[in-house]
Amino acid sequence: MPSDLLSPAHIAHALHQFRTRSPLVHCMTNDVVQTFTANVLLALGASPAMVIDPEEAAEFAAIADALLINVGTLTADRAVAMQAAIGSAINAGKPWTLDPVAVGALSLRTRFCQQNLERQPAAIRGNASEIMALAGVSRGGRGVDTTDTAAAAIPATQKLAQQSGAIVAVTGDVDYVTDGERTLAVAGGSPLMTRVVGTGCALSAVVAAFCALPGDRLINVAAACGVMKQAGEIAARNGNGPGAFEPAFLDALYTLNGEVQS
Amino acid sequence: MPSDLLSPAHIAHALHQFRTRSPLVHCMTNDVVQTFTANVLLALGASPAMVIDPEEAAEFAAIADALLINVGTLTADRAVAMQAAIGSAINAGKPWTLDPVAVGALSLRTRFCQQNLERQPAAIRGNASEIMALAGVSRGGRGVDTTDTAAAAIPATQKLAQQSGAIVAVTGDVDYVTDGERTLAVAGGSPLMTRVVGTGCALSAVVAAFCALPGDRLINVAAACGVMKQAGEIAARNGNGPGAFEPAFLDALYTLNGEVQS
Amino acid sequence: MPSDLLSPAHIAHALHQFRTRSPLVHCMTNDVVQTFTANVLLALGASPAMVIDPEEAAEFAAIADALLINVGTLTADRAVAMQAAIGSAINAGKPWTLDPVAVGALSLRTRFCQQNLERQPAAIRGNASEIMALAGVSRGGRGVDTTDTAAAAIPATQKLAQQSGAIVAVTGDVDYVTDGERTLAVAGGSPLMTRVVGTGCALSAVVAAFCALPGDRLINVAAACGVMKQAGEIAARNGNGPGAFEPAFLDALYTLNGEVQS
Repeated sequence: MPSDLLSPAHIAHALHQFRTRSPLVHCMTNDVVQTFTANVLLALGASPAMVIDPEEAAEFAAIADALLINVGTLTADRAVAMQAAIGSAINAGKPWTLDPVAVGALSLRTRFCQQNLERQPAAIRGNASEIMALAGVSRGGRGVDTTDTAAAAIPATQKLAQQSGAIVAVTGDVDYVTDGERTLAVAGGSPLMTRVVGTGCALSAVVAAFCALPGDRLINVAAACGVMKQAGEIAARNGNGPGAFEPAFLDALYTLNGEVQS
Repeated sequence: MPSDLLSPAHIAHALHQFRTRSPLVHCMTNDVVQTFTANVLLALGASPAMVIDPEEAAEFAAIADALLINVGTLTADRAVAMQAAIGSAINAGKPWTLDPVAVGALSLRTRFCQQNLERQPAAIRGNASEIMALAGVSRGGRGVDTTDTAAAAIPATQKLAQQSGAIVAVTGDVDYVTDGERTLAVAGGSPLMTRVVGTGCALSAVVAAFCALPGDRLINVAAACGVMKQAGEIAARNGNGPGAFEPAFLDALYTLNGEVQS
Repeated sequence: MPSDLLSPAHIAHALHQFRTRSPLVHCMTNDVVQTFTANVLLALGASPAMVIDPEEAAEFAAIADALLINVGTLTADRAVAMQAAIGSAINAGKPWTLDPVAVGALSLRTRFCQQNLERQPAAIRGNASEIMALAGVSRGGRGVDTTDTAAAAIPATQKLAQQSGAIVAVTGDVDYVTDGERTLAVAGGSPLMTRVVGTGCALSAVVAAFCALPGDRLINVAAACGVMKQAGEIAARNGNGPGAFEPAFLDALYTLNGEVQS
């Protein structure tokens, strides 16, 4: 199963659809990345909202266009609310996306992610160690960081897609996105993205939002990765460190027209 | 009840008082906007603190000069702590301000806000959909976004002020601030403010802080709106997207002298 | 017990060790400063992770190289998880650092900090009012702000170091770091650091991370203070307000080579 390179035209088309629809995205994410996640979605033209009470989360998941579940600062209480939201999203026919942050070595999140793999996630986005742990191939990385390359995780990514029925994206220097049959490669980005907290988590929110678009979900998820890679490249040109990178990244997302940037 | 335009001299006077007093502001706000809210208050010269345990929240609400209650990521536990803080603020004669984020469609926050309308809030700040939902005129907006203009919500704003005894501010392209009798209009700002998360929530914190000032509370709340509008205009001149806008906005708040800026 | 000035060579040496080792830092910190804390550690080359569930926090504290406990938004639930993490860190021989935010006037955090003083913290970092309250000399400051100078708190700092066995850092215009016998002074920084939320809390995370280094812990903790002072000076040169300061500060941390900067 070799991978094909995602075309800039696909990214441009998906981004145009995204801006036209401005999806309402219900983000249940970790404490560390809430602000950046919201700002990334706002810069791209989406409408983010974070609703976390179990009763309200179930209500809102049915109203929103897409749901993100990120387990970075999971607690038992939050797991209950997330379960309620996932159930409500499924009933309402809304796509939900899983970000299995640091899954593997930590108990609560590993149980939670494994249980919810059966609940028809539309997409899963993680780094190599997370995807390999979730596919049952390894025990996870070093904290929230990966100890493997994305390329090394391609077989685990394809296996996880086949098991779960989700589009699975493993991200790194190059991102690979698969439905278990076809695999797309997305190049670009900047090493500075690993020195700004939340770029991966925010990508998962963008993936969740792009799952609300019509058309080929494999291509839409890959386009979400491509949009973030393009913005990362533009921002790295302007900035000289992670501090200047972050505002430049948001401005790049805001002005990106989906055409070839490099 | 026509509205009058708030004068720049009123803004300058209130801002001068604010900087002299440096109010200690107890912020019980949502997860997404905590950092930005604190940085906005710090840039303006106030002293923010976020204290959320029920026992400590009650203690601190009596010590602080003002209390902000924002229901954006309300949970049952947080509602208990907020109730305790409101009670303590009332007993200590300290003003409390309500930001009814996304009230209407979501159950827990709607019940919470309606129950606390009777507890003498000093001020209420929301977008048109939130104010109309709280006044019983409509069922709320699209997630955290409004589906109505502020001008269309003026009657609901005045009704809510009369019902609650609070100064009510409905914010949008133009902000309207009323005590139920007099209504002030505050123009300015920038559309970029809707692409940075927390500008509305931070405004509510600034409104809460300005409620600690002596003098005419209607004018003080309108001045809080005016300060944020002025900073937004200055920041939009310097920045070319929401990323560059945010630091420029904080710098504008920091250097603002309250005189006419445009 | 007069204080000696920390030498730039000590800072350079500790920073070099830090970048080589890239410590994995378990941060249990307050809601307001999570993002900034993570970005500060990432800019310096460390690997931060925030894990807060009691079961997972105990697991992760044994894996990480260092643990930070910051009580800024303590709740009863979080206290349980923090206790579990501290116990696990002690068992695994990993250093833990306490940031006693606003200790003194608020009940829950005061009890929590006093109880945990007996549990062998490697380091304690606070402002003058916090250190004096924890040493039993006063009742604390104004919210999260100090009402005393760091110099006035030197005797309390030394007393607290002797009582707890920790390296204690009291920070302000000049920072003082002591093991109860030797006391080092760290000059530099910028007043703008008090207008950006989380600079003190992020320093505590950096102190926690530097406690994972081999060698003289007194000098390592003072070097952590020195690194932040140097970055603050550089950032203040570039920026004209707290908004521009923050990205400039992160960029300075990223590019700092530990040599004399002024």
